[in-house]
Amino acid sequence: MASMAAAFVVKSLTPASNPAHNLIHPPLLPGSLHIRRRLQTTAAAPLRATFAPATASCSLIEPDGGRLVDLVAPEGPARDALRREAARCPQIRLSRIDLEWVHVLSEGWASPLGGFMREAEFLQTLHFNCLRLGDGSVVNMSVPIVLAIDDAQKRAIGDRRRVALVDARDRPVAILSESAPMFHSIDMLTKMVYSWPCYSIEIYKHNKEERIARTWGTTAPGLPYVQEAIAKAGNWLIGGDLEVIERVKYNDGLDQYRLSPGELRAEFARRNADAVFAFQLRNPVHNGHALLMTDTRRRLLEMGYKNPVLLLHPLGGYTKADDVPLSWRMKQHEKVLEDGVLNPETTVVAIFPSPMHYAGPTEVQWHAKSRINAGANFYIVGRDPAGMSHPVEKRDLYDADHGKKVLSMAPGLQKLNILPFKVAAYDKTQKKMAFFDPSRPDDFLFISGTKMRTLAKNRENPPDGFMCPGGWKVLVDYYDSVAPPEANKLREPVPA
Amino acid sequence: MASMAAAFVVKSLTPASNPAHNLIHPPLLPGSLHIRRRLQTTAAAPLRATFAPATASCSLIEPDGGRLVDLVAPEGPARDALRREAARCPQIRLSRIDLEWVHVLSEGWASPLGGFMREAEFLQTLHFNCLRLGDGSVVNMSVPIVLAIDDAQKRAIGDRRRVALVDARDRPVAILSESAPMFHSIDMLTKMVYSWPCYSIEIYKHNKEERIARTWGTTAPGLPYVQEAIAKAGNWLIGGDLEVIERVKYNDGLDQYRLSPGELRAEFARRNADAVFAFQLRNPVHNGHALLMTDTRRRLLEMGYKNPVLLLHPLGGYTKADDVPLSWRMKQHEKVLEDGVLNPETTVVAIFPSPMHYAGPTEVQWHAKSRINAGANFYIVGRDPAGMSHPVEKRDLYDADHGKKVLSMAPGLQKLNILPFKVAAYDKTQKKMAFFDPSRPDDFLFISGTKMRTLAKNRENPPDGFMCPGGWKVLVDYYDSVAPPEANKLREPVPA
Repeated sequence: MASMAAAFVVKSLTPASNPAHNLIHPPLLPGSLHIRRRLQTTAAAPLRATFAPATASCSLIEPDGGRLVDLVAPEGPARDALRREAARCPQIRLSRIDLEWVHVLSEGWASPLGGFMREAEFLQTLHFNCLRLGDGSVVNMSVPIVLAIDDAQKRAIGDRRRVALVDARDRPVAILSESAPMFHSIDMLTKMVYSWPCYSIEIYKHNKEERIARTWGTTAPGLPYVQEAIAKAGNWLIGGDLEVIERVKYNDGLDQYRLSPGELRAEFARRNADAVFAFQLRNPVHNGHALLMTDTRRRLLEMGYKNPVLLLHPLGGYTKADDVPLSWRMKQHEKVLEDGVLNPETTVVAIFPSPMHYAGPTEVQWHAKSRINAGANFYIVGRDPAGMSHPVEKRDLYDADHGKKVLSMAPGLQKLNILPFKVAAYDKTQKKMAFFDPSRPDDFLFISGTKMRTLAKNRENPPDGFMCPGGWKVLVDYYDSVAPPEANKLREPVPA
Repeated sequence: MASMAAAFVVKSLTPASNPAHNLIHPPLLPGSLHIRRRLQTTAAAPLRATFAPATASCSLIEPDGGRLVDLVAPEGPARDALRREAARCPQIRLSRIDLEWVHVLSEGWASPLGGFMREAEFLQTLHFNCLRLGDGSVVNMSVPIVLAIDDAQKRAIGDRRRVALVDARDRPVAILSESAPMFHSIDMLTKMVYSWPCYSIEIYKHNKEERIARTWGTTAPGLPYVQEAIAKAGNWLIGGDLEVIERVKYNDGLDQYRLSPGELRAEFARRNADAVFAFQLRNPVHNGHALLMTDTRRRLLEMGYKNPVLLLHPLGGYTKADDVPLSWRMKQHEKVLEDGVLNPETTVVAIFPSPMHYAGPTEVQWHAKSRINAGANFYIVGRDPAGMSHPVEKRDLYDADHGKKVLSMAPGLQKLNILPFKVAAYDKTQKKMAFFDPSRPDDFLFISGTKMRTLAKNRENPPDGFMCPGGWKVLVDYYDSVAPPEANKLREPVPA
């Protein structure tokens, strides 16, 4: 069975050899460059958080709050001054997940949020999954974007008004600060309504149990994000505005895929997209996914759109240990495009920098909301989005239909068109992935993510037509790289 | 010490001997009677849920959804027909708490909700603490109002379209049904927006863990409402519209205090109230509460209102075992009015029929929202509203300030004026309850609810001026009735 997969050569994922790179041209995005140049010459906002205007040349959906947040300081003296200042401030060392959130915030994925949440934003997120803005409008915000500190850090910060955030090697990343008056004048309309002052740095209690219960709907031990980022975190949260010193990079060979919402908007404008449909994923793409994406484009054309563009948008932040790592997923997505399963002309592949919560109906709102900020006005939602098995009980953590139901009713997402996932399965009569036909259920084979991963681990092949062979080979290679096959190794049982 | 308390005679709580009854005249409420008469003669709505119009003679706050829901069938043939029909339907026997919710729904406290929640309403409540209506507006709804059934009941109901709800003695209380076309025509504007049909009876999964986690922010064992109403409940929830056969009564001598929102509105109109401020409580009233209520009226007069009326609104449904029972609380409130601590001319005492969740910031929204429906446009919120001790950890379950913060930001409550509670404590220099003066903290004594209850249990007296003597005597009598004092009985330690 492995021979089929072996017939395909995996190319290395370098810009020179990667045809998928034709899909996106970070250095050549005219709108994006324009935006950044504008920032550099805007006298009123050399140091503070600023807004990149939504691209005007194309009628993309408006970002939440009306303007896309951009927290990265412009290159030059201002940036250098921030870097020098960081050395004199109390410092908080960021975990990898913290850094991913700085990345998310810095580029405006969470617009209009301008930094780590203060308590009023945290409470609104936990209780209402949305934030009310100064003009009375509501934007969706379902997962807390918070920074935890411990007692010693709290003491060290004291009543200082500016705090430096540094990476694992103590290099300054950002300054967390109160809002300066200059910032106010730009931002007044998009600030929250509070009955108490909200513009200073805030340190408030990190009630982990309540945060977990309200975000995940369970407090069972074993939730991956909780274990990774909450359980051992400090008992305080610190909120405030961010001034990010430079664009967050990971130097893992994938940074060129990490397009900001502003860059994506510019790319959609360049392509004259009149509809953008986003597909969030954290798994390899199989032909069922591809069928769905192709079919969605067909439906949008039927609705009268002239040029619907797909944003194929794998999640690039923290994922749990048994998910396929980002670099291998990107290789796999590349193969899917190379093999012509998806049309490069109408597809943009980019990495969504957010970490994964696995918080089901709560998290799917974040996945949708952030894509509004990137210019998507259609969002494809699958069965059990952001779901996983219950960590201690033998069942799925969430009802498989709750994600799409909650999404369709979520405050602040009314302007987004939700496209529920049609069920695709392997049609044994056609030997390909097809939309499930309930009139002949026995003709269909359902291949879950777990089953797919187990087959690849065992170097077994799925039925022909399940995934393009090049893509499958990447998966098999990944599992080989983790645990090379042994002649007599027992195969894992493949779930039915 | 008990002699002071013994100097006051406790009168029985009968209408004839109870001066507090002058505050409210259920049989004489002209607006209320008018409404009920109107229902009886409205040809278009003899059987279905109908709306009582908000009283027109006074500019009270508009009920949620624009019209006050009234689900009680008018007396006469229609009611008799419902009762006969109930005998032929599959039946669900209601627990005491279920019956309390039928009561709540029937009178429009949860307007515009017209019955037990279907899944879309349940999900919106859990995730967003609000419901979006057909016209795009939003009403607050923070606690699930749901009816649980078990597997056998689900089977018995099958695909029947109408189900009878019966009380503990199998007397029919209501019919749970799909919405009839007639109902639609009245209700179209206040129905939720769904992307799937929503008007039939719905039976859906009761994920208890998720419900508990999202409502309480914890799943720790020992939450009173969970133990009483959820833990042993069935694994399904049934949602649908309600037609309630007659007004829910408990025949406990307190029904005359159970004024519906429509009756309260009529009473406020009769008094020409131009502001109504609600005070929710589940504890005896002490002079600190009274000070606050009197001071609130003073502030409202200063703001230009001519006739602010207080709705003193003790919660009358399920409470936990160590709370003072409703009948004793009502006796105590009666004494407070008799003793002139509150002015009967500007106070309406009535019972709020809802059961208590002890769900802190989530529940306080329900307490506020339901009072909008009863005509209150000001809501007094205290420290740690609807809070309690964590059931397994040595701390309060909720941050004491979160209730008022969450309330001030809650969707659908913008039209309600939130009045945060000033801290009152016993001023030893003045020998009375006074607003705490932080410049001389040592002059003040804080007497918590737990401390108050322990003193009363021990037949000890609080300092003079903490509570009117008649009210204190009721408390002592209550604890005597539970465990009569013994000569040598050890006193419980009074918390500091």
